[in-house]
Order: sequence, then C-alpha cells, then structure tokens
Amino acid sequence: MRITSNGSVPAYEKIARQIKASIQDGLYTYGSALPSETKLCEEYDVSRITIRRAISELVDDGFLEKVHGKGTFVKYRRFEQELLNLSGFTEAFGKKGIRVSHHIIEESIEPADLVTRKQLQIEKSEKVLKIVRLHYLDESPFSLDTSYFPESKFPGLFEFLKEDDSLYDIMKKHFHISPLHADRTITIATPTERECQLLECDMTEPLFKMEKLVLDDDEPLHRSVLLTPSSRVSLKLRM
Amino acid sequence: MRITSNGSVPAYEKIARQIKASIQDGLYTYGSALPSETKLCEEYDVSRITIRRAISELVDDGFLEKVHGKGTFVKYRRFEQELLNLSGFTEAFGKKGIRVSHHIIEESIEPADLVTRKQLQIEKSEKVLKIVRLHYLDESPFSLDTSYFPESKFPGLFEFLKEDDSLYDIMKKHFHISPLHADRTITIATPTERECQLLECDMTEPLFKMEKLVLDDDEPLHRSVLLTPSSRVSLKLRM
Repeated sequence: MRITSNGSVPAYEKIARQIKASIQDGLYTYGSALPSETKLCEEYDVSRITIRRAISELVDDGFLEKVHGKGTFVKYRRFEQELLNLSGFTEAFGKKGIRVSHHIIEESIEPADLVTRKQLQIEKSEKVLKIVRLHYLDESPFSLDTSYFPESKFPGLFEFLKEDDSLYDIMKKHFHISPLHADRTITIATPTERECQLLECDMTEPLFKMEKLVLDDDEPLHRSVLLTPSSRVSLKLRM
Repeated sequence: MRITSNGSVPAYEKIARQIKASIQDGLYTYGSALPSETKLCEEYDVSRITIRRAISELVDDGFLEKVHGKGTFVKYRRFEQELLNLSGFTEAFGKKGIRVSHHIIEESIEPADLVTRKQLQIEKSEKVLKIVRLHYLDESPFSLDTSYFPESKFPGLFEFLKEDDSLYDIMKKHFHISPLHADRTITIATPTERECQLLECDMTEPLFKMEKLVLDDDEPLHRSVLLTPSSRVSLKLRM
C-alpha cells in the first residue's frame, strides 16, 4: 500500500482497493469487461486520471488484464461452491460448464485413525480404503480430497475407480447406495509443504478444510476431508 | 515442534498432535475430561510415559488443563455455528445455553458503498443505517458484525436498538417483517489492526468473512458482514 507524504492514502489507491473488493465480492466477474472509464469516473466520483492509475495498479496485481483494442477484463477467478448440495464434486461443478478432472495421488488399505474410526463407527481392527485425489477445475488444481470408506462396505472400490471418475456414480452403480445425508464441518487449516506442492499454493495461504460425513439413514457411509486454498473459492449458501 | 537427534519426530510429540487434532475435530469437547491414562495408552498404543509427556505438552499449549484430584480437562474452545439457520446471532447461540451479549461500536447514517448499493438494490442518493456491533459469547469477543439497512425501510431503527438486543426481534416487532431467505457467502479475510484490537486476535489469524443478504420474498432487507477469528468457530451444515 502506498502512502502520500502527508500520511494519507492516495485517491487512486483507495479506488483500486474498492474495485478489487468489487471483483472479490463478485460484482465484476471473471472474464467480463470492466465498465468504461467514463462510467467508472461517475460511479466512483473521481477523475479519469485516478481511474486510469487504479486500473493500472490492478493490472500489475494480476486482477485485471488489458486486451488491446477490446478493453479491460477481470482476470481474477474465484469459483463458487454451493454448500447445499448432496452430490459430489464432479456433479456440482460439471453442471456449471466447468471442466472437472481428477488425479489419483494415493490409494491404500490401512487402519483408520481415531477420528475416522469414531465417525465411521468402525472397530480398531477394521481397515479403511483411503483415496487421495487432486481435483482440477478448468485444468487448475482446486482441492485435495482424502476419502475414507469402510473396507467391509465397499469391496473392490479401487477397481471401479479405474472405469469411473465419480465416487457417487460408483456408489450408486456398484453398491446401490444413494447418500441421504451429509454432515459438513468447515474450519481453516494451514497447508503442509506437500499440500502446497500439490495445490500449487503459498505456505501462508489459509485453506478451507471441509470435513464431510456421508450417511445413508443414520449409517455412516464414508468420510472425506477436502482442502481448498481460500483465495480460489467462495462458499455459497442460499436458503 | 521438537525433533529428536536423528531427525524423527518423538513419539510423545506425535501423540500430542493426534490428541490436539481430536480436540480440534470435536472428539474431545470443551470442558469434558480426557479419558484416563490407561485408556489413552490402549487407544494410541503407546506407553504411559509417552501419554504423560504428550498431555504435559498440551497443558503447556493451553489445550488441556489439569485440575488437582479431578483429572485432565479440555480447555480449548471452538464454538459451533449452524449455517442452516435463518435466525440471528442472539437466537442461534442463546438456544444452546451460551451467554450472548453485544457491544455497539458504531452507528451512522451514510451513503452506501457500491457492493451494499447493488445488493440492497438502492440508488446512489439513498442512505443506509450502518450498525457495527461486537458479539460476545460467554463474555469473550466472538465476531464483529457490520449491518446495513436501507434508511427508507427502517426509520427509527437506532432508537429501537436501545431497548432490544436482537435486530430480528426489532424487525418483527416494529416493522412486521420476518425474513424469508438469506444468501450467504463465506470467504477468508485478513484482519485490519482495528479488527484485531476489537476481536482480541492476532494480525496473522485468518478471519471467516460471512456476508449475508436477507430477503423478504425477493426484496432485499438488509446486508451484514460478519468477521470471526477462524480458530474460534467451526461452521456446521447438516442436510
């Protein structure tokens, strides 16, 4: 942040912050053109020179992009994730025309940790199928998903994963299960070094940690932990 | 984090982390007694000396508290906030037996910023009543709430606030309005210096920023922005 010699924030800097807030709040959306300079002058009640300087600041910060002969466009992208949604990742974003893909990072059959055991209501002796996947939206890493399934309920799950991307489709098709309820808990976590590498984010970026327990009636079916860099998403809830 | 001379993490440190995760995940809840040492030895498959050292670590970190002759209790507190809740702050936490109080930081009648104008669908010329309140749960600062009301819809609102704590009760009683819908957007923000002072949090602590637009049918009624230090809350959603 730049400060003038008398200690106050210059006008263009104030406007730059306001436009940035408008972009982050979704008033100006990804890929859309910013209003004309004339309109912005009116909207913010400042001179054209101030608007130009504010825009140039935001181009430098990667929030805006100038396309020669066409105008200034919003470059900053934040995906909206609907919370009131029982379907999985693939279904939720696929519906919006966003390209969804996954990369399997790890598959293992192992003893469950304490939290997973209590949540899935399984004994210490029972193992879980653990699947770590990296989800991509429009070819960019978006979130890291660690899912746990009780081995007894989902035999052969890993095999089916080779044919089908969607865990929800697999549950339906091969195990005749359609989840009825989901309990979600949202907190904030700091990323580990490995999570930063996979998600291509900064060590200082807070992650949304979304823990989900999916139930059929009152019987726990599976547990997942989703980590998403907080600058890449806004969580939406309409009721 | 302590590391042994050969570069590995000592056993007690691993156990301390696991117990800490269990507390943060709500397996061991605020005010409850930790299981006995014997039970913890069994649960985590380690010696009594390791368990003792892990507990002593967590006492030092403020996560646990030893009460002489009574046992070890969970001191770390994270409030659960239900997202599927149309009522206001006072109602939502009051129901759980948590003492809720507020302190009014600021009241003003002013032109609305761009985001507020668009969300409340008001003209540039129309002013908004702005109320900044600090919410306390059990006497500790919990979240900073900035609410905006169109002046035309809520004349005299500030006067009523002197008699009644709950904005929702005031809307019902004096304006005969019961909100029907709310749109919520959850993102992460970094606190300003003033926000840190009010919320008694660290400058490095990420805040949950919850923006809410309350509607009656499709008519916007009011907008609020709630800032909560992320270590103090877990957001819950059951569907």
